[in-house]
Amino acid sequence: MDILPYHRRINYYETDKMGITHHSNYVRFMEEARVYFLEQIGWGFDKLEAMGYLSPVLSVSCKYKQSTVFNEEILISVKVGSIKGVKFTLVYEMTKAKSGHIILTGETEHCFIGPKGMPVRVKNEIPDFYNVLITLVDDKQS
Amino acid sequence: MDILPYHRRINYYETDKMGITHHSNYVRFMEEARVYFLEQIGWGFDKLEAMGYLSPVLSVSCKYKQSTVFNEEILISVKVGSIKGVKFTLVYEMTKAKSGHIILTGETEHCFIGPKGMPVRVKNEIPDFYNVLITLVDDKQS
Amino acid sequence: MDILPYHRRINYYETDKMGITHHSNYVRFMEEARVYFLEQIGWGFDKLEAMGYLSPVLSVSCKYKQSTVFNEEILISVKVGSIKGVKFTLVYEMTKAKSGHIILTGETEHCFIGPKGMPVRVKNEIPDFYNVLITLVDDKQS
Amino acid sequence: MDILPYHRRINYYETDKMGITHHSNYVRFMEEARVYFLEQIGWGFDKLEAMGYLSPVLSVSCKYKQSTVFNEEILISVKVGSIKGVKFTLVYEMTKAKSGHIILTGETEHCFIGPKGMPVRVKNEIPDFYNVLITLVDDKQS
Repeated sequence: MDILPYHRRINYYETDKMGITHHSNYVRFMEEARVYFLEQIGWGFDKLEAMGYLSPVLSVSCKYKQSTVFNEEILISVKVGSIKGVKFTLVYEMTKAKSGHIILTGETEHCFIGPKGMPVRVKNEIPDFYNVLITLVDDKQS
Repeated sequence: MDILPYHRRINYYETDKMGITHHSNYVRFMEEARVYFLEQIGWGFDKLEAMGYLSPVLSVSCKYKQSTVFNEEILISVKVGSIKGVKFTLVYEMTKAKSGHIILTGETEHCFIGPKGMPVRVKNEIPDFYNVLITLVDDKQS
Repeated sequence: MDILPYHRRINYYETDKMGITHHSNYVRFMEEARVYFLEQIGWGFDKLEAMGYLSPVLSVSCKYKQSTVFNEEILISVKVGSIKGVKFTLVYEMTKAKSGHIILTGETEHCFIGPKGMPVRVKNEIPDFYNVLITLVDDKQS
Repeated sequence: MDILPYHRRINYYETDKMGITHHSNYVRFMEEARVYFLEQIGWGFDKLEAMGYLSPVLSVSCKYKQSTVFNEEILISVKVGSIKGVKFTLVYEMTKAKSGHIILTGETEHCFIGPKGMPVRVKNEIPDFYNVLITLVDDKQS
């Protein structure tokens, strides 16, 4: 499956008094990229939430490599890091659209809370989704 | 009833590349002040939401008089502008805590959506709340 | 000149506990649309800031007509309301991309602060920009 | 030195459609707590920026343990994790004010960019600040 990177620009309100994008916003950009990634693989948030699943973020980490400025175009690629038990991780790489320089590498860890309010094993509960995810596990990560 | 103004400081992430507080944040500060105001008069959001009422914002307006900077302390006073039918307005004045200079004047218009999903007349549906609000109508506004 | 409306989707982090887009975010969407509008007419923020001009927001107003939800696609059209002395206004209309229903109408008022830190008359100081803006004044607004 | 934890409430606009605080906001709360921490030890952002120092965030990580809801009161404690060369880390623990339950543990990594635009060794360049920081290194972390 060919997954496209997520593309967006830095908004004015996302800059701070240092003149660069405030570091907290990248966590939001990662969410935007995650939404786009899940849609591309056919398992958008809307679909999962309609099925009664919520996917809270268990952990997030970002390593900031370069700053970005207002109106700068960035690309965010998302890959599956690992799927273990009730948890899975996604890994992110943000690059400058023009130069290709790396802005950030990041990772989020998730679980799925099922209709009964408990974490579920994706493998057992949503096997169709699991089967897509597992083919996307990035060998460099796991 | 003696209503205290809401006090807060400007956070770093609320500044933008002009070095000042981004104008969109003041709409959020107005909400914070509104929450504090309603708590003081004994009708906090929590209580109203627990009773099944939601209070969507119908309109908002802000006039920006002076900018503020990171870590600056501001005060926000809230008054009831008017109560008419299913709508009521709140009026806001933000001042610099040190100098007393006016930062912003603003207004929000609200209604209450009842448990049945329809706007309700506060006067009829939540008369205890109405009776408090009506004593707080600011004569200068109405 | 044919100005395209600005297109965007609602992000997950822009929703609130009511399940809809938090009202403060629309002020940010208006800024995004303004940036896109100015770029289309050849006077992007970047260009104006490089020339030494800042354009603070003097006032903002929004009338909320309908709510929006996560992932919903919206369109924002921007028009010039008026240009008077050192001030000009922009008017906004947000619609749902699918149904065309109006979400919000809004207005922002701006001035331009020149390299000397004082408001300038766009007509005199940046006549090329003024000449573009004046042709875009929306007759319904002024 | 007795450092007080940072205290704040969850704002309505910080919740998302799951009804809980959006995970990205905790990165902002960590910044608020960091600002308060630095003020308490006599080295506020304002002072450092006035001396020509900027302190960009090099990395951030958060482990989410429990969610929080609108108006909930939280406490954030900040400790120095380590100081090595041009980098130092701060570690955070957020707890529910009422129950004391842990909401989040987190870490940020920073450097200081000096007036010449280059990272500086705090030990050599701002020894008074270094001497305070070093006494605060948390033995459990380093």
